[in-house]
Amino acid sequence: MRQSKLFTKTRKEAPSDEVSKNAGLLIRAGFINKEMAGVYDYLPLGLRVLKKIENIVREEMNAIGGQELLMTTLQDPEVWEKSGRWSDSVVDNWFKTELASGGQLGIANTHEEPITAMLTHFVKSYKDLPVYIYQFQTKFRNELRAKSGIMRTREFLMKDLYSFSRSEEEFRDFYETCASAYLKIFEKVGIGAVTYRTIAAGGSFTAGLTDEFQTVCDAGEDIIYVDSKNRKAINKEVYNDENLSKFGLNKSTLQERKSIEVGNIFPLGTRYTEALGLTFQDEKGNSIPVIMGSYGIGLGRLLGTIVEVLSDDKGIVWPKEVSPFAVHLVRLGENEKVILFADKIYQDLQKRAVEVLYDDRDLRPGEKFADSDLIGIPLRFVVSEKTVVKEKVEVKSRTESDSKLVSLEKAFKLV
Amino acid sequence: MRQSKLFTKTRKEAPSDEVSKNAGLLIRAGFINKEMAGVYDYLPLGLRVLKKIENIVREEMNAIGGQELLMTTLQDPEVWEKSGRWSDSVVDNWFKTELASGGQLGIANTHEEPITAMLTHFVKSYKDLPVYIYQFQTKFRNELRAKSGIMRTREFLMKDLYSFSRSEEEFRDFYETCASAYLKIFEKVGIGAVTYRTIAAGGSFTAGLTDEFQTVCDAGEDIIYVDSKNRKAINKEVYNDENLSKFGLNKSTLQERKSIEVGNIFPLGTRYTEALGLTFQDEKGNSIPVIMGSYGIGLGRLLGTIVEVLSDDKGIVWPKEVSPFAVHLVRLGENEKVILFADKIYQDLQKRAVEVLYDDRDLRPGEKFADSDLIGIPLRFVVSEKTVVKEKVEVKSRTESDSKLVSLEKAFKLV
Repeated sequence: MRQSKLFTKTRKEAPSDEVSKNAGLLIRAGFINKEMAGVYDYLPLGLRVLKKIENIVREEMNAIGGQELLMTTLQDPEVWEKSGRWSDSVVDNWFKTELASGGQLGIANTHEEPITAMLTHFVKSYKDLPVYIYQFQTKFRNELRAKSGIMRTREFLMKDLYSFSRSEEEFRDFYETCASAYLKIFEKVGIGAVTYRTIAAGGSFTAGLTDEFQTVCDAGEDIIYVDSKNRKAINKEVYNDENLSKFGLNKSTLQERKSIEVGNIFPLGTRYTEALGLTFQDEKGNSIPVIMGSYGIGLGRLLGTIVEVLSDDKGIVWPKEVSPFAVHLVRLGENEKVILFADKIYQDLQKRAVEVLYDDRDLRPGEKFADSDLIGIPLRFVVSEKTVVKEKVEVKSRTESDSKLVSLEKAFKLV
Repeated sequence: MRQSKLFTKTRKEAPSDEVSKNAGLLIRAGFINKEMAGVYDYLPLGLRVLKKIENIVREEMNAIGGQELLMTTLQDPEVWEKSGRWSDSVVDNWFKTELASGGQLGIANTHEEPITAMLTHFVKSYKDLPVYIYQFQTKFRNELRAKSGIMRTREFLMKDLYSFSRSEEEFRDFYETCASAYLKIFEKVGIGAVTYRTIAAGGSFTAGLTDEFQTVCDAGEDIIYVDSKNRKAINKEVYNDENLSKFGLNKSTLQERKSIEVGNIFPLGTRYTEALGLTFQDEKGNSIPVIMGSYGIGLGRLLGTIVEVLSDDKGIVWPKEVSPFAVHLVRLGENEKVILFADKIYQDLQKRAVEVLYDDRDLRPGEKFADSDLIGIPLRFVVSEKTVVKEKVEVKSRTESDSKLVSLEKAFKLV
């Protein structure tokens, strides 16, 4: 895409009420726009990154047998009354609305209840199970205070998968499969090295412990204890002698770190399936409630975490897999030969199906480099009068300070 | 995908409160699920169709210079107060909600106001225009009565594009470009032959006439007069002698037909840009309000229209371009040779990147054929003991009654 055509522009300053590093950088670079506290639009550059993350997650969810669907935002109170979660005293961050024809509606906070109710139309026998269903759906949480930029918002896109199994064993197998898929996802999006599967409190529905995925980061709201050598970690709320010995952790090798919860996996047992009547007939004809689990990744939070963890003082640093473009082609000068040469490289890259942002704007080199660093595309090709005479481009990685003058052929191979 | 793994199943009956043909068929075939009146989930088969339609629309919007973004569902009343559209007496189908920290929020009914406000951060000079922005975003309409299945719902995915131009001429050029793109879209999704660009009333913001896209269909809520030979049409509300003569239409060649509005394009002038302060400096330094247009296509309504227009008494008939799968491979019998042969065809099709639904279920042929007709994939390959001995498959198009026995090579070429 030609940058002169991109309607967004970099901004010198983020809005004065924006205190988080992630939203500050993303607003300045033109990836997102702030509608109000905790509510952000995804502008073209931001949407490209969001879609890349979505595709990485989708690929892994399909690989473990997930079937994608799309539930609705508007929700019938009836299913929530059955599970006892309609009341604001039980779920304290509901957004609700009124139907013109009378009655209240819920605005999707999560989807356990409607998805369980929907499945009652299809699951009758043990032959109909297991079922793994997921979606990319917007969730709404009526947070009293929105903070941490796009990491804790009132409206956010979430991948939520729900597993429906016949036995505890079948559920546990999938639970572990999904945990492995999650680690692959975090690896692919570029934060694998600092992300841990952690031991966490089970919450209100599980007496035992459960698992979270936490990324070490100073902007995090959580505290974990990390054994980085053995890739093990435990959440602060369950950090006690009993659990340390149970999981073979040693205080001397654990370091306290701030962290961001980038994913969670959760055993739900028969909590919702019993409430909503999702049962199956086993081989002997007995009616048995389905065993359920839920598995969430917030896409915006993941995007924000990548920015928090990898950015530097010049701007964002995108990992290759989620970068809005593979190459930032920067043209310096309006000399006709330079324009022709740069245009040709732009076309050649497009022919090779390389996603390229072409800075064809008539601006000073300093401004262009500053914008390029702020936007954070991993690979930069600079074309100038100096490079044209040698029929070469100046190539620089976003994370390195030195550039190299290389032939076009060599440059294309780097992509 | 193996049909035995697909969690949805066909249903003998639609819910008793479902009167529309489109939702009735889509529910019975397992494409959608009804949450409540006017609110439908997209199940895996339905989501596949929805995504195909979305991609067709996206391609055409990108081709005319559209830049995709994603605005939010939660909306700040402030921008709506500026345009005078916050009041329920002006917009009578708002869903609104309350923020826990105080104050009301809008739940996206449309996006003219927030998108115009967002653009004020980026548009300053004539050099920053024109801008064409679009999104696939869910809209919420608090309809008093939801009817017509997925064609008039309380929650629906819409492609909405907004144009921002410097002059009336620049606006009109794009308006015509977008109208042509719309006709291409309706052609591609299979309803081109019965879809017309119609002359329509301009609504509250335009004294003149505007354009709609209407598909001839008995389930439609609108009335148009169609000259099918000359591919011209006019809406009932502007059907009068003055307009007929203005547009060269002749009563004797016009037929009254029911129709479904599948798209609209709308001149907005400076209605919103003035209210929200979106101006640009022209070459002489004058501050001028931007000229705006909006262009909508409801994806669910389009999907429902395809079902209404093309289905027959056996079920849905998907056009190739939007079908959830290209081929329905139906295996008859559980004979080992048949299984091996069918499995091999399934793998071969997948290797060729053909999207195939493989009915590998142990059911009677009659049930399988009925399901296949109901689901409506355009091409069916049947494998049975009879075909295996000849190393052939029985090929049938969904719209033809006779099948042909052909070699695998020939069958693959048909895809």
